[in-house]
Amino acid sequence: MNRPTATLLISCPDQKGLVAKFANFIYSNGGNIIHADQHTDFSAGLFLTRIEWELEGFNLPRDIISAAFGSIAQPLNAQWQLHFSDQTPRIAVWVSRQDHCLFDLIWRQRSQELRAEIPLIISNHPHLQGIAEQFGIAYHHIPITPDTKPDQEAKQLKLLQQYQIDLVVLAKYMQVLSSDFIAQFPRIINIHHSFLPAFPGANPYHRAYDRGVKIIGATAHYVTQDLDEGPIIEQDVVRVSHRDQVDDLIRKGKDLERVVLARAVRLHLQNRVLVYGNRTAVFA
Amino acid sequence: MNRPTATLLISCPDQKGLVAKFANFIYSNGGNIIHADQHTDFSAGLFLTRIEWELEGFNLPRDIISAAFGSIAQPLNAQWQLHFSDQTPRIAVWVSRQDHCLFDLIWRQRSQELRAEIPLIISNHPHLQGIAEQFGIAYHHIPITPDTKPDQEAKQLKLLQQYQIDLVVLAKYMQVLSSDFIAQFPRIINIHHSFLPAFPGANPYHRAYDRGVKIIGATAHYVTQDLDEGPIIEQDVVRVSHRDQVDDLIRKGKDLERVVLARAVRLHLQNRVLVYGNRTAVFA
Amino acid sequence: MNRPTATLLISCPDQKGLVAKFANFIYSNGGNIIHADQHTDFSAGLFLTRIEWELEGFNLPRDIISAAFGSIAQPLNAQWQLHFSDQTPRIAVWVSRQDHCLFDLIWRQRSQELRAEIPLIISNHPHLQGIAEQFGIAYHHIPITPDTKPDQEAKQLKLLQQYQIDLVVLAKYMQVLSSDFIAQFPRIINIHHSFLPAFPGANPYHRAYDRGVKIIGATAHYVTQDLDEGPIIEQDVVRVSHRDQVDDLIRKGKDLERVVLARAVRLHLQNRVLVYGNRTAVFA
Amino acid sequence: MNRPTATLLISCPDQKGLVAKFANFIYSNGGNIIHADQHTDFSAGLFLTRIEWELEGFNLPRDIISAAFGSIAQPLNAQWQLHFSDQTPRIAVWVSRQDHCLFDLIWRQRSQELRAEIPLIISNHPHLQGIAEQFGIAYHHIPITPDTKPDQEAKQLKLLQQYQIDLVVLAKYMQVLSSDFIAQFPRIINIHHSFLPAFPGANPYHRAYDRGVKIIGATAHYVTQDLDEGPIIEQDVVRVSHRDQVDDLIRKGKDLERVVLARAVRLHLQNRVLVYGNRTAVFA
Repeated sequence: MNRPTATLLISCPDQKGLVAKFANFIYSNGGNIIHADQHTDFSAGLFLTRIEWELEGFNLPRDIISAAFGSIAQPLNAQWQLHFSDQTPRIAVWVSRQDHCLFDLIWRQRSQELRAEIPLIISNHPHLQGIAEQFGIAYHHIPITPDTKPDQEAKQLKLLQQYQIDLVVLAKYMQVLSSDFIAQFPRIINIHHSFLPAFPGANPYHRAYDRGVKIIGATAHYVTQDLDEGPIIEQDVVRVSHRDQVDDLIRKGKDLERVVLARAVRLHLQNRVLVYGNRTAVFA
Repeated sequence: MNRPTATLLISCPDQKGLVAKFANFIYSNGGNIIHADQHTDFSAGLFLTRIEWELEGFNLPRDIISAAFGSIAQPLNAQWQLHFSDQTPRIAVWVSRQDHCLFDLIWRQRSQELRAEIPLIISNHPHLQGIAEQFGIAYHHIPITPDTKPDQEAKQLKLLQQYQIDLVVLAKYMQVLSSDFIAQFPRIINIHHSFLPAFPGANPYHRAYDRGVKIIGATAHYVTQDLDEGPIIEQDVVRVSHRDQVDDLIRKGKDLERVVLARAVRLHLQNRVLVYGNRTAVFA
Repeated sequence: MNRPTATLLISCPDQKGLVAKFANFIYSNGGNIIHADQHTDFSAGLFLTRIEWELEGFNLPRDIISAAFGSIAQPLNAQWQLHFSDQTPRIAVWVSRQDHCLFDLIWRQRSQELRAEIPLIISNHPHLQGIAEQFGIAYHHIPITPDTKPDQEAKQLKLLQQYQIDLVVLAKYMQVLSSDFIAQFPRIINIHHSFLPAFPGANPYHRAYDRGVKIIGATAHYVTQDLDEGPIIEQDVVRVSHRDQVDDLIRKGKDLERVVLARAVRLHLQNRVLVYGNRTAVFA
Repeated sequence: MNRPTATLLISCPDQKGLVAKFANFIYSNGGNIIHADQHTDFSAGLFLTRIEWELEGFNLPRDIISAAFGSIAQPLNAQWQLHFSDQTPRIAVWVSRQDHCLFDLIWRQRSQELRAEIPLIISNHPHLQGIAEQFGIAYHHIPITPDTKPDQEAKQLKLLQQYQIDLVVLAKYMQVLSSDFIAQFPRIINIHHSFLPAFPGANPYHRAYDRGVKIIGATAHYVTQDLDEGPIIEQDVVRVSHRDQVDDLIRKGKDLERVVLARAVRLHLQNRVLVYGNRTAVFA
């Protein structure tokens, strides 16, 4: 479906008639729904929905939709986002020294699996500059020490603004962001190289090896102020055995990290992830 | 959610306004939707949906719902089924000599994972009569030879009628049903011990071993007149290695067969499976 | 392979010639090796091996093998166990109120997937007595309170002795055993209903739900004095989504628990699990 | 383990003493075995083994090992291969228009996951020349028509000779090789984009979609004269649903293809794959 669409992600207190109200809003304005999915979380008392419809033939002009829907949403105490499929999000990929997730994201963007621009790479190391050049992406090397961190984060924020970045992807960035930073730029996806909540923090593969687990995993999540505690978007696992040394775990883990991160970024870009509390509903 | 609900499974040619029309039908009659899911199959031009709502507070009496909804559905050329959650379906389990799927279904029914009655077991062998007795289920031993098949199938149909059976589950029955039988009683789920369409027909584990596959599977599907060609409800797989002999494949496969069959039966009983063409939409 | 075999599980400091020495011991005494597998853990400097050979045609009488092999093993500082396949191990299954793992173990034992006797069930609740009776297994109801625990554990130990139990399987026993007990009877396998080390301790499914994970797991491990910290034998996982409530996690988890526990018990019974440090080598 | 090693892959009719004989050959010449694995296929009456030992301290010069081992192997009717870890194999990657497997193999080779050289890319299309240039790899565009095939295959064979290629990897080459070609250069690994033996031949994703399967797969296998019938090295699968259109299957499948092909090539390069009959033992 390459015709432009609009997507609403809505969460509101559950009550009768919500599906009808939202569907009527689209239908009465001449819209053709191409995807609608909803979920009621009874324990939270919340109704969550994703509705996507074609803009062609829709009677409301784009700049009116928000206000028009607002008058329905407000009495319902709904929280909602509106996205247009032909507004391409801009991603900054943040890396340290490992290149596998970066390469993978670039390849997927180039092959149109990810509908986004990647105009910016930020790293605390100079190692991956060559890849940036190879693909014509700006690369900013911003080393971080405990002392310089506040200043450097200010630089990073400025770059995000300058490059009009919509989403930061931490593609094995291996640095903790400050609460301050996250408060100012909250749209961040991280890949953690373990099956969270097992092995949060540093060196998860070494610790997985020491524990003697038979399966390892990777977790993509939104970044919040609590390290490795943000809402999980996607996880996957792979089997290991006593024959696998730490190096083997790292190697097998790289394949997981690439795929799990890419799936999460894709779901986010397609506006399929609705965060509520510390959880996500993924309308895949 | 233990309060009684009604569920509609609907498929109809795609057009604008369907979500709104169906949701309005529930809402305007005072119904509270607790699950709604839809899918548009653009290649088939079909809109498919499952809507479940609470009967409490719904203004239409049960015996009117069907007629009332029909007046909406007919102009849309919709096909639809209506189910009530407090009408417990009755299952006949058909077996040969293997007991693992039978045991599993009975255990799940007893532990209320499957909301159904199991009043009848039919087998072409006498071997599992003891299990039937243990759990107080009627057991009918109906041996089949090419010559006696038509007569025996007539007996089987009579039993299904007598026990008011809604669903036949072939739990490793290992016999092919005639087209005639299927035409007269089409609500049949089979578990096939391979990852279809690989290894249809007899002895799939032996053939999987001979082919040297590294993964084996099991497939639960509705039975149609073409052997092992019916709409697939659920599949799953397990890894094998060169160390696994045919006996190991059979043993590992049994765990798959139990789980895959149980999932499929549960999905069916919850009216989550919508068949269209030779495919299923599973609103899980 | 139903002819009787002997199996050696050996671990010793790595050095040259170990494969040759152990293989020569079997060969020079006329034995036919049917399975041999070894692993060198270079980080631990340990050589680990499992060797199984047919007793038919082996020149050493059974009661001599141990002494004969000891004279090879001692100079190598090897630790080793010797098992005969025709000595059937005796299992006590310990349960609380949930029956799914118990049922599963009994079914597998009856169908000869598990070569063992199950003469004894111990429970802190009376609920599953009926199952014991159904299958002709002794059932001892031993309720536990903090005050009575020492006395009750003494009773339990006495029962294990009386029934000549080789292995205790905690099939959702939901009680912590004292260090004292474990010291006196260390051959215990537990199934924990999470993907350890995530969610050790109580209520893992509730905590998995609260954390919003996308995959849940189960872990079978040997019991040590540190709760849920013993050597892991087997793990497996299943995918969940935002649609799955705690009850769904529990239901999906039961299927995992059954399969993971059964695999671990089978591997143990076939003498395929070699514990070293807090790890296992599984010669599957 | 970066010190140079030798590896023997041996298959021979089963008999007593084989483990001892092979281990003694290494030990008596001062070798330190770092990996040994064996398997007896009782149905085929075959003993299969992989033995890897360090060359440092081994008393036989490299150019003698083969002859020395031959005198042991011949009376046993053994078939065997000898490999040295410091002789880097040379790979030719063959592609059509899709770049995902090519990119992946190059990245893994660059990051030393695959110990091999990739000096040559052959394609029946010009599309991926840019990638070859980017990474400094020779690219030969050899279009194929039914008429030109014999001549073009002659060219291809010449290139393999010229570049001293040890292994051809068909990374979505989408062309069938002639029996003649395979007879002259039999060391070929192919990735097939289905879970063989399901959907051999063309358009497996379309056919998987049409069949309504709930899981799709990919298969890496050695190429033999029977299309998609060669010995399977590795397979893996991913779950799909009714929401996945053919394009989604293709996209999900690409991730499978990359990983499955890479695993198979890595296992082959580490001499862990022993072909016998139409099967493989994978000593992973």
